[in-house]
Amino acid sequence: MALAQRLENLGTETAFAVSLAAAEWGAKGNRIFPFHLGDLNLPTPSNIVEAMDKAIADGKTGYCPAAGIPQLREALADDTGARRGLKYEPANVVVQPGGKPVITKFIQSIMNPGDEVLYPNPGYPIYESQIEYFGGVARPYRYLPTANGFAIDLDQVKSLIGPRTKAIIYNDLQNPIGAESTTAEREALAEIAIKHDLWVMSDEAYFEMRYSGTSTSIASLPGMQERTCILYTFSKKFAMTGWRLGAAIAPIELATVIAKLNTNDESCTTHFVQYGGVEGVRGDQSGTAVMLDTLRKRRDTAVSMLNAMPGVNVHSPEATFYLFPDVTEAMQRKGITDLAAFAEQALHATGVSFCTRRHFGRPQADEQRNYIRFAFSGINVDDIEDGLGLFGKWIAS
Amino acid sequence: MALAQRLENLGTETAFAVSLAAAEWGAKGNRIFPFHLGDLNLPTPSNIVEAMDKAIADGKTGYCPAAGIPQLREALADDTGARRGLKYEPANVVVQPGGKPVITKFIQSIMNPGDEVLYPNPGYPIYESQIEYFGGVARPYRYLPTANGFAIDLDQVKSLIGPRTKAIIYNDLQNPIGAESTTAEREALAEIAIKHDLWVMSDEAYFEMRYSGTSTSIASLPGMQERTCILYTFSKKFAMTGWRLGAAIAPIELATVIAKLNTNDESCTTHFVQYGGVEGVRGDQSGTAVMLDTLRKRRDTAVSMLNAMPGVNVHSPEATFYLFPDVTEAMQRKGITDLAAFAEQALHATGVSFCTRRHFGRPQADEQRNYIRFAFSGINVDDIEDGLGLFGKWIAS
Repeated sequence: MALAQRLENLGTETAFAVSLAAAEWGAKGNRIFPFHLGDLNLPTPSNIVEAMDKAIADGKTGYCPAAGIPQLREALADDTGARRGLKYEPANVVVQPGGKPVITKFIQSIMNPGDEVLYPNPGYPIYESQIEYFGGVARPYRYLPTANGFAIDLDQVKSLIGPRTKAIIYNDLQNPIGAESTTAEREALAEIAIKHDLWVMSDEAYFEMRYSGTSTSIASLPGMQERTCILYTFSKKFAMTGWRLGAAIAPIELATVIAKLNTNDESCTTHFVQYGGVEGVRGDQSGTAVMLDTLRKRRDTAVSMLNAMPGVNVHSPEATFYLFPDVTEAMQRKGITDLAAFAEQALHATGVSFCTRRHFGRPQADEQRNYIRFAFSGINVDDIEDGLGLFGKWIAS
Repeated sequence: MALAQRLENLGTETAFAVSLAAAEWGAKGNRIFPFHLGDLNLPTPSNIVEAMDKAIADGKTGYCPAAGIPQLREALADDTGARRGLKYEPANVVVQPGGKPVITKFIQSIMNPGDEVLYPNPGYPIYESQIEYFGGVARPYRYLPTANGFAIDLDQVKSLIGPRTKAIIYNDLQNPIGAESTTAEREALAEIAIKHDLWVMSDEAYFEMRYSGTSTSIASLPGMQERTCILYTFSKKFAMTGWRLGAAIAPIELATVIAKLNTNDESCTTHFVQYGGVEGVRGDQSGTAVMLDTLRKRRDTAVSMLNAMPGVNVHSPEATFYLFPDVTEAMQRKGITDLAAFAEQALHATGVSFCTRRHFGRPQADEQRNYIRFAFSGINVDDIEDGLGLFGKWIAS
C-alpha cells in the first residue's frame, strides 16, 4: 500500500510557511504587517456578486458544460481578443476553476515524459512542480537586473533550447518580480518559439492589473496565436481569488483536449460563479478602477519608503502588486547572510512579514544578489506606512 | 507541436451525446422526456444558499486553505464519521471542487504505471479513463442479475487479482445500476482488499440518498478505514451538482498528498461555497427530506410503469436515482438488436431520452442482456407518466 512514485516529483508552494510564521508571531500578541499575502484584501465588485445571486435565483445550480457556459466563453473570446488585437471564438475558451488549473492542463496536454520546458525562475513555483510531476525536464531561465527593473536573459534562453524542448512558459507582468518585457524582448521570445516550433503558455494573470499604459500579449505577435495558450484569471482584476474562476484561451485543438481534461477532473467550474464572470467582463468596470487606484497608492507609498532605506533598492512596477527589492546591502549592514534568517529577524524585530526569492523556485547557479518579495495586495496604506517605518528603522539600526 | 501521447489514453463521458441528440430532437418541436440527465431539477435548499450569501457578505471571497476551510473539514469529519460508526479527524478530510476530483487524485496518489486497478463495469466511465490515463491497467468487474437487483461477480473479482493489483474502486449504491451490496458481499470485498493489501476507493456519492434503511460504508468494516478513500459529494443529497463541492476522506498519509495535489491543481475550492457546505452538513435537514420524498414518488411511478411493459424488467432501488431496466425482450419484440438504435428509435417515436449500458464503460465479454439507464432526477412525476406512457405503447406496438 505504498503511495505512487510520481509523488516524489510533485512540488508545492512553500509560501504557506511564511503565513504560518506570521500567524504564530501574531498569536503571541505582536502586530503583523502582511506583505507576504498574494491575495487582495478588497471586496469583489458588488455588481459581480449580484449577477451571481441572480443566477442562483434563476436555478443555475446544476451541472453546466465542461468547457463553461456559452455566455462566458463568448464574453471572454470577445474581451480577451479585443484587448490583444486578436480574434478568438468561444471554442478557443475553456473555463477553469481559477487560473492555476491552466498550468497543469497545458503541461499534460503538450509535454511527453523526457520533454523539456523552459520556465521563469524566480517565478510561480507550480510551473516547475507540474513540469517535473508529469515527467518533464524543467529548464529555468533567469532575469537580469536593469536600470529600472529586470530583463529576461535571452542568451540563457537560447542556450537552454535543445531537441527535446517542447514549450516555453512566459509570465510577462511577472510574479514575483513585477517585470514587464520590452517590445524587443517579447519579440525575441516569439522569434525563438517560432524558430524552434515551441508551444507557449503565456501567464497573463496581471494583464489588466496595471497602473499605466496597456499590456501586450505575446499571442498577438505574428505566428504566435496558433502556438500560445493564455492563462486568464478573474482572481486579480476583479478581486475574485476565492471564487476560483479563470480560463485557458488556446488554439482549438489544444482547447478541445483541455475541455476533455475538465470532464475527467472536475466536470465543470461552479455554474453560478460563471454568471458573475460574465458580469465582470461585460458589466460596469468601475469596481476595477477603484481597486487599481487603491493599489497604486499602496505601490507608491511602499516604493518610496523602501528606496529611502539604506541598502534597499526596488523599481516601481507598472503592473502586478508585487515589489522585488534587492536587499543585498541591507543584509550586509545587518550582518545576515541567509535570506530565511533575514525574513525571520525582520518579522520578530518589526512584525513585517514577506516572502523571499527562495519561495519562487530553486535558486539558479551563481545568483549573487538577495531579493525579497513585498506584496501590497493585502495591506492598507496606513499599515504600509507603519510597517515599513519600523522595517526601515530596523534596517538602518 | 504535437500534443502529448498520454492523451491517447484519456477517456471521457459519452453521455453528452445523448443530451445533444435529445436537444436536437427537441429543437425540431418535439416534446422530450429527459430520463438521461444525471442531474437534479430541484433547487438547492435555501438555508444553504443563505449561508453562502452570508459568507460573501462577510468577505469570504479570497483564497482559503488548499485542503478546505477548517469548519467544513471538521463538519465532514464529524458527520461522515458518525454516519459510518468511525472516528475521523479534520486532517482526514480534503475538500474538493466536487466528488469527481477524488477519482483522479486517488488514482494519481496510489497507482504506478503498470499497476492494475479493479473497477465496476458498468460504472462511472471516469474510473476507467483515469486508470488508463495515468498508465495503469483497468480491470473491470461485472454485476450479475439476481432475483431483486444485481450482485457483484465475486468469483470474477478474485480471478482478476494479481501481483500488480493495487486498488479496488467500489461503488456501493451504484450508478448506473442502482445496486446495493448485501452485507456478505461487502464483507467479501473487504476480505479480498485486506488479504491482498489493496487500497479501496469507495464512491459514496449516494450514501445518504436513499428511500429506506441506512447505508453501510466498506470503510467501517474491520481493517478497512486505513486503506479506504471515501469519495464524498454534496452534489446529490443537497442538489448541489453545479456548486462543485465534495471531499476525499482518507487515511492521513493519503489525505496529505491529495491536499498537495489541490495546491498544484486548483489552489482551493471556491471559498464561500464551503460555508454553504457547512450549513448543509450542520444545519436544517428538511430540504433533503423534501427532496427524497419527491424522488421516491418518481421512482415508484417509473418502476411500476416500466415493469408493466412487455419485455421490460427493472428492480426498485432503495438508493440512487437510477433505474437499470433489462430491455432484452422488449428489443426483440421491436426487432432491434443494437442498443444505440433502440435509444434513437425510442427518442424519435416517443421523445423519451435515456442512456444505455454503453455509456458506462466498455462492454465486457459475453454480455447477453441489454440494459438501459433511466434517471429520475431530472424529470417530474407528470412527465414520467406521460413519457413512460408513450414509451410503453411504443414497446407494446
